[in-house]
Amino acid sequence: MATETLNTEIRRLTVTIFIFMKLNSIFCQQFIISFQTVSDCAVGQFYDVSNLSCVKCGVNQRASVTGLTCVCLPGYRVLTTNGASLTCQQCSPDYPAVTEDGFGCIRCPGSLSEEGTCLCPQGTVRVERDFQGNPLEEARCEACNGDDPAFSVPNNKGDSCERCQASFVDTSRSCVCASPNVLAGGLCFPPNNLPSNINPNVNFAELALPVQSAWFLKNLYSSSAACLVFTNLTACQALGNMCVMNMHSFSSMSNDACGLFNLIFRSMAALGTTQDISYWRTNLPWLYYGDQPGLAGRVLQTDPLPIEFSFKGSKKNTDIKLISAVYDVRGEFLRWENISGGSLQLCPDTAIRQRAAYTFGTAYQESCDVSVSELLRAYPEPLFYDVFVDLSQGEARRLLPVPSLIINQQYNGRYVNQENMKNWYLSRRVFLVDTLSGREKSLSSQPKVIRVAANVKLRFQLVPGTQKGQAFPPLLSVSYKDVFLSDLATQTVSMSFAVEYEMDQNEGRMRTDTALGVMGGLAVLYSLLKTVSWKRRISSPLVDMETMLKFLLFYAGDLANVFFCITVGTGLYWLIFSKAQQFVSVLLPLPAQEEHMVTYIGCAFTLKAIQFLHKLILQLSVDIFLIDWERPRSKATRTVNASGEPKRDPSPVSIWRTYFVANEWNEIQTIRKISPTFQVIAVLFFLEVVGFSNLALRDPWSTLERPPQAYTPPYSLTLRYGLASTLWLCIGLLQVVFFTVFHERFVEDKIRQFVDLCSISNISMLVLSHRCFGYYIHGRSVHGHADTNMEEMNTNLKREAESLCGQRGLLPNTDTQTFQVSISTRLRQQYDRIRETLGRRNGPSRLVDASSANPFEQSTRAYNTMNRFLGSVIDHAHRDMDYIVKDKLLFERVIGMEFLEPNDKSIFYNDESHSFSDVLFYGNEATLLIFDTLFFCVVDLGSQSFVLAAILTYVQQMIFRWIRGALGRRNLANKTLVDERFLI
Amino acid sequence: MATETLNTEIRRLTVTIFIFMKLNSIFCQQFIISFQTVSDCAVGQFYDVSNLSCVKCGVNQRASVTGLTCVCLPGYRVLTTNGASLTCQQCSPDYPAVTEDGFGCIRCPGSLSEEGTCLCPQGTVRVERDFQGNPLEEARCEACNGDDPAFSVPNNKGDSCERCQASFVDTSRSCVCASPNVLAGGLCFPPNNLPSNINPNVNFAELALPVQSAWFLKNLYSSSAACLVFTNLTACQALGNMCVMNMHSFSSMSNDACGLFNLIFRSMAALGTTQDISYWRTNLPWLYYGDQPGLAGRVLQTDPLPIEFSFKGSKKNTDIKLISAVYDVRGEFLRWENISGGSLQLCPDTAIRQRAAYTFGTAYQESCDVSVSELLRAYPEPLFYDVFVDLSQGEARRLLPVPSLIINQQYNGRYVNQENMKNWYLSRRVFLVDTLSGREKSLSSQPKVIRVAANVKLRFQLVPGTQKGQAFPPLLSVSYKDVFLSDLATQTVSMSFAVEYEMDQNEGRMRTDTALGVMGGLAVLYSLLKTVSWKRRISSPLVDMETMLKFLLFYAGDLANVFFCITVGTGLYWLIFSKAQQFVSVLLPLPAQEEHMVTYIGCAFTLKAIQFLHKLILQLSVDIFLIDWERPRSKATRTVNASGEPKRDPSPVSIWRTYFVANEWNEIQTIRKISPTFQVIAVLFFLEVVGFSNLALRDPWSTLERPPQAYTPPYSLTLRYGLASTLWLCIGLLQVVFFTVFHERFVEDKIRQFVDLCSISNISMLVLSHRCFGYYIHGRSVHGHADTNMEEMNTNLKREAESLCGQRGLLPNTDTQTFQVSISTRLRQQYDRIRETLGRRNGPSRLVDASSANPFEQSTRAYNTMNRFLGSVIDHAHRDMDYIVKDKLLFERVIGMEFLEPNDKSIFYNDESHSFSDVLFYGNEATLLIFDTLFFCVVDLGSQSFVLAAILTYVQQMIFRWIRGALGRRNLANKTLVDERFLI
Repeated sequence: MATETLNTEIRRLTVTIFIFMKLNSIFCQQFIISFQTVSDCAVGQFYDVSNLSCVKCGVNQRASVTGLTCVCLPGYRVLTTNGASLTCQQCSPDYPAVTEDGFGCIRCPGSLSEEGTCLCPQGTVRVERDFQGNPLEEARCEACNGDDPAFSVPNNKGDSCERCQASFVDTSRSCVCASPNVLAGGLCFPPNNLPSNINPNVNFAELALPVQSAWFLKNLYSSSAACLVFTNLTACQALGNMCVMNMHSFSSMSNDACGLFNLIFRSMAALGTTQDISYWRTNLPWLYYGDQPGLAGRVLQTDPLPIEFSFKGSKKNTDIKLISAVYDVRGEFLRWENISGGSLQLCPDTAIRQRAAYTFGTAYQESCDVSVSELLRAYPEPLFYDVFVDLSQGEARRLLPVPSLIINQQYNGRYVNQENMKNWYLSRRVFLVDTLSGREKSLSSQPKVIRVAANVKLRFQLVPGTQKGQAFPPLLSVSYKDVFLSDLATQTVSMSFAVEYEMDQNEGRMRTDTALGVMGGLAVLYSLLKTVSWKRRISSPLVDMETMLKFLLFYAGDLANVFFCITVGTGLYWLIFSKAQQFVSVLLPLPAQEEHMVTYIGCAFTLKAIQFLHKLILQLSVDIFLIDWERPRSKATRTVNASGEPKRDPSPVSIWRTYFVANEWNEIQTIRKISPTFQVIAVLFFLEVVGFSNLALRDPWSTLERPPQAYTPPYSLTLRYGLASTLWLCIGLLQVVFFTVFHERFVEDKIRQFVDLCSISNISMLVLSHRCFGYYIHGRSVHGHADTNMEEMNTNLKREAESLCGQRGLLPNTDTQTFQVSISTRLRQQYDRIRETLGRRNGPSRLVDASSANPFEQSTRAYNTMNRFLGSVIDHAHRDMDYIVKDKLLFERVIGMEFLEPNDKSIFYNDESHSFSDVLFYGNEATLLIFDTLFFCVVDLGSQSFVLAAILTYVQQMIFRWIRGALGRRNLANKTLVDERFLI
Repeated sequence: MATETLNTEIRRLTVTIFIFMKLNSIFCQQFIISFQTVSDCAVGQFYDVSNLSCVKCGVNQRASVTGLTCVCLPGYRVLTTNGASLTCQQCSPDYPAVTEDGFGCIRCPGSLSEEGTCLCPQGTVRVERDFQGNPLEEARCEACNGDDPAFSVPNNKGDSCERCQASFVDTSRSCVCASPNVLAGGLCFPPNNLPSNINPNVNFAELALPVQSAWFLKNLYSSSAACLVFTNLTACQALGNMCVMNMHSFSSMSNDACGLFNLIFRSMAALGTTQDISYWRTNLPWLYYGDQPGLAGRVLQTDPLPIEFSFKGSKKNTDIKLISAVYDVRGEFLRWENISGGSLQLCPDTAIRQRAAYTFGTAYQESCDVSVSELLRAYPEPLFYDVFVDLSQGEARRLLPVPSLIINQQYNGRYVNQENMKNWYLSRRVFLVDTLSGREKSLSSQPKVIRVAANVKLRFQLVPGTQKGQAFPPLLSVSYKDVFLSDLATQTVSMSFAVEYEMDQNEGRMRTDTALGVMGGLAVLYSLLKTVSWKRRISSPLVDMETMLKFLLFYAGDLANVFFCITVGTGLYWLIFSKAQQFVSVLLPLPAQEEHMVTYIGCAFTLKAIQFLHKLILQLSVDIFLIDWERPRSKATRTVNASGEPKRDPSPVSIWRTYFVANEWNEIQTIRKISPTFQVIAVLFFLEVVGFSNLALRDPWSTLERPPQAYTPPYSLTLRYGLASTLWLCIGLLQVVFFTVFHERFVEDKIRQFVDLCSISNISMLVLSHRCFGYYIHGRSVHGHADTNMEEMNTNLKREAESLCGQRGLLPNTDTQTFQVSISTRLRQQYDRIRETLGRRNGPSRLVDASSANPFEQSTRAYNTMNRFLGSVIDHAHRDMDYIVKDKLLFERVIGMEFLEPNDKSIFYNDESHSFSDVLFYGNEATLLIFDTLFFCVVDLGSQSFVLAAILTYVQQMIFRWIRGALGRRNLANKTLVDERFLI
């Protein structure tokens, strides 16, 4: 009882454990299986595809050739089949052989084969059943009757007789090809005049490696003979294909494929031509255009295609319709294939992108590396393409053959197609990948070398001067590459496919050069004028080295403008015409044709930079003096005693107004008519965010947004330049207009504010940009005093607002406060004399500090002297340094030169337009804007990145603004004696 | 003679014309040919492939079936063949029929066929030659013996007898399949227990269109029967494939492919399982995992793959090795195929990009539209894939089956796989394109519907908490799409292939939320503290609505900082861990998992914007007064007579120093510790030009440059945010360090300059940011006077530089010029009283302009009063409004709050650190920098464009700077009475 309970317990436990294990195996099993393939199976095993492992065959069985099923051993017949399970039975010694179907045993007339079937001698067939299908006791070996009228030979399977190949019958009236007839490639030829020493080598010239090709060895002679003797169309095509596989190369010495083709071509002259094309002989494929010199040019550039390409409008037509007759290597015609998408493109890509290649006007370029093993898999045999342009319109269906240019083609050993176009030798029919001709031993062996059309390029050329979108026939240029197979697993071939559009750019270039010449000449004249004006302003009549240098500097600026105009004009021309044209009349210059444009842009930039630096240096060295009109309130006389020590004035004139004015001048030094940072940001916004950069793509579309899956053609340098410079200039001009028309009128005008400040603070300013030329801002307060408290200041301002006091002008009852001044040499000399003591402050006199009691004091004295001197000059107190005020002539304004020389009297020209800003950044906006534009474009041309160009332009602007600000401040401090610490 | 000459001339002319025409035809011919295809050829024409046109056949001939050659008419035999040319001869009436090979004539036992050959009855073979190949006079029709032992039927050609199919022999011991045996699909089955009413429909559920499939009709029953009865392995696979083509859908009601499969699956239970996997039955393909609830979760999330993925180092392992057993539709095993590159990807792309899909950690996504015609061409028959992970290492070769999830799979009409994971029904075996099952009439007809694996997704899930790079087995989820063929030329199917990596993000999210809670709590405390401090500074003890609002505003700022810290921390965490990890331990959150992150960023930005605007408004309304210490030089008493008209002072104190100081204050309002534009440009430079943006791609690589032909994965929002915010903060901090350490020390420190200016110009500044709290800059000149001429100014400056005069501090012998001030309520009240008259200038009193004599005068008077009052307060002249100077406690500094209340005496705290800049942009750099950072990131998250974000950030900075500048200037003019015209 106890034992039983125990047993029950144990059984229950076992069951529990079993269930647990079962559950475990269900829930936690990892499902990992071992990995076996067919080749892993041992002898006597087959690969069971339902459980992916090797399984033993039944008794008396072995695996079949594929390894996926079992078959009976030799000498065993199949007794029953039941799906996977097979029963085999040994044949009895009386009937030792197994029948062909494997189900019966039979006696043999002769010996047994290794597979256990009967063996019949060559030329005989094995018969195992009678005509009614009844099995014979003993197999019979019957000889086939090869003579008339039977003409029979054993069939492939060797179980019945069939008629032998027609060429045997035709040539020798029997199934034996006896001498002098020639047996080749399974055909029987009568004696013919083909050379016997044919050359079955394929010359892989790139590798300097001739390979005896199994395919050529087998088929070259027979194809040639069948073509020549039997005019077999397929054989002729096959021969042509072999010539194509040899890259159309031939020499008159060798009997290679192309040699044989030409031999037959000549011998078939009598048969006439096909389709009225003299290079296309009846029954033969068309492989070559003629070899007349210059034929290529005539074929490619004489008659345009009868198609009118148009980018826009109702007649929009950008489809390039190519069609190709496709042949296989045996010469069989396979199909007509529309070439759109991937037909000629070996690089894989989406259909939508590949189709973009056949849109007229879209520069297409696609390249990739393809693994050799992939090529071997995808192209076991080459296909041959005869490419045509499909001109069909409605019912009229016509084709125009596309000539091809095989870059590797040799003509008597010369690579003629890599030479001048005059020597080109156009051809027809191309292939893409040939893995066949490089097989050396047999057709099923692995090839030693494969040949790939690595660079395929379709080139269109526009008819010069067309307004209707006419183009010459396209040229298909193919460059083959020979790849020696070494490491199948990792070897790759780089390939490319491109479609290019070209037009003759000579005319445009000639025009550009003419414009350059004319405008360059004008620039010389203008620069001369500037130099003369400069000479007058520095009041020096001598022509010396410095004059020459000045002339060159002026010329640099003017020539930069000329280059800039021409390049921007060209860029804009291309931008407008290439993107807006309806019927195609212009095509973008190719990268190689853009070189001179790049040179021009480089010149423009370099020259502009020289001009900019020149102006910068001039601005950093102008003479400035602030004349304080304020007189002390207490009428204490300003006596200067003999010791040079002025008495301490009990209520001196405050210097703070001067500080204020100098400080403001310091601040307006670097302001511009535009906001340079906003300029950079706005240009970047339009180019990169709005998508204007898409306008610079080499295609005819002018849309700003491109779907991400569409093909993106390469950029055109010309268009990038045209786009960037135009955009930069446009935004710059808009900013200038905004700032001058709106901002300065309604918000803030720094220049006018400065002039007002001068007037309110009772301080005049004299700026001498040249030795005897400069600008004067008259700032004498109309209230007599400005150095006063807030109450009076407010009263003064109010009175002026209510027009209760005089006007601010230099002359009575005028408003003109700003003048250009031509000062007489005498005045300048006096100015320089006072200045000398003033300027010594920072001069070498410091070294002899002891001699001069106090440099501060000395310069302050000089400052006071200068202040008084200039004040008295303006007040007409000096007879010999008097001046007159007059208006400038219009013509003087235009050419920027004064006609009158200030011989004894200085001349003050009224200048309402604040031209004193010429010594600031503000008055040189044009130069700065063009310099920035060129800087931006040059960086972009170099880096092909608008973002980088924008960033570097910003940095450039920052650096030059800092230089101008810092050095300008130092110059201001030096010249006006205002301590640099107040210029903040 | 003359005639002869004429003739000669004419002949010469003719020859010339002929030559000319010939030349013309050579040089100017357009080579245009007409376009003909095989289908264009008329009856009696063949298509000559050598000249691509239709050519007439010879007499008694017609075109062959292909149309490429000619054959003899029926009743005509071939006499000779000579390549293209054929001679046909009519057979004589005695021998009216043509032999099979076409070369002979023969008599017939029966009638003639349409092709002119002899016709034999069904079941008989036609014999035209004897065993030796000799032609017979008359053809014979021999009946094949179908009984034991011959078991023969006519072969396909009908010219000899061969053994009939084995199933006939096995089933009925004859070549006739007599009842009750069942003839199906060319096989003979014994009666079996398969249902007879099988359902050969394919249910295109998406289109609600059941199609009776020709393939199913022909093969479904026979495959099932052959599988069940003969256990034919191929038939079992073929049956499985039909179930797969039905998308594994089955219901217990219908005898469709999957129903039959399951029937056989159950009936084969006795045979056991394959490879120890309970769902994989012997002889059958493995199609389903079990249907236990929750099995999917256990299969997918129990045991990790025995592979350790690693991104870097010597053990780098990122290869996902998938391998697949490929079967054709007939059930034949084709090959083992490595799945790398395009095997499962229907979108064409370069091999290098397609291979990127199988790099662990690289989120892969590729989609495209493929034209239906292309699919029909490329996939005439479906292929079936059993996908495994290849675990082989060295000799040990093991596989792990990859479960697949068919999204469209129906289980008794329910789409179980679109429900919760608990209900998923995993399966095996997928196909990509099936153009076969949708063929309705015959197998060669065009399909009515095709089925495409439109969305294929491979999903990996990381083992939670792994440090070794372990992942669970991948899941292959497939969603099929049924395409009804309507317009073959234009129809396309959109497809996608994706590889996704996922990890459980709950833990990380919990940590984030915890941090948010803790830091949010701290923020409440800190905001409370700020509110208390604010209450004290405005000297108001009441808790009112305004206090609540203030608290909320402070809290907004602090909470924004919390959100900012957490989001930047998270972003940086992912950036570092996902890009720098060696063994895979984290995987980026999927886009769906990033939503809460985006919410947090949005919160941070909104709250920060509120804080920023709050600060801006506060800054725009501070109280400012400039105290002029200058006293008139002439000791004339400043008498104010009864009429309120002050006597004109003969030497008033100049207001220009005040103008200068106010002007400078105006200028430093918007300066910052960084250059904001440089910040934008520098960030853009690093992101877009240097290529930092590549770090935000969803892959494990941390290289900055990617080759253009490589695959570009999508961006991760988290990484973009982490990258952009970190970069922005880093560059900002670097700039702050540069400006504070280098620029302000060696080039220019605007803040210190301003303090110096105050001192030199003898002007103090009082800024009240709160009612009773503010800042005081002590600017009393150490020289007593500052309103003097240049000489004295220079002397003063020199004396100070040589330390010949007192120190600038408020207290004697101290240097401290800047103070934080807590003023007593009494002082403030007095201030407000004076201020009232001053402020009225712009108030509504203007409307009653007549009553007040002169608003200018009134405010000037108030200005003078205020100036004197504040001066006297600083000079300790008011007993009841005295002040003390003391240092702030460290703790007071830290929490930004004063402990002492200024009850009867105001308190001046020494403040060396220029904290008055808190009322300028300068002192709030942290807020501004974080606001800019968030603005940049938010724009980028919305637009996925760093360029746009940079541009908008620049514009934002510009706008706020302009607002701060313009409104701040107006406030300054209002409060200091300095005319706005002087703030330039």
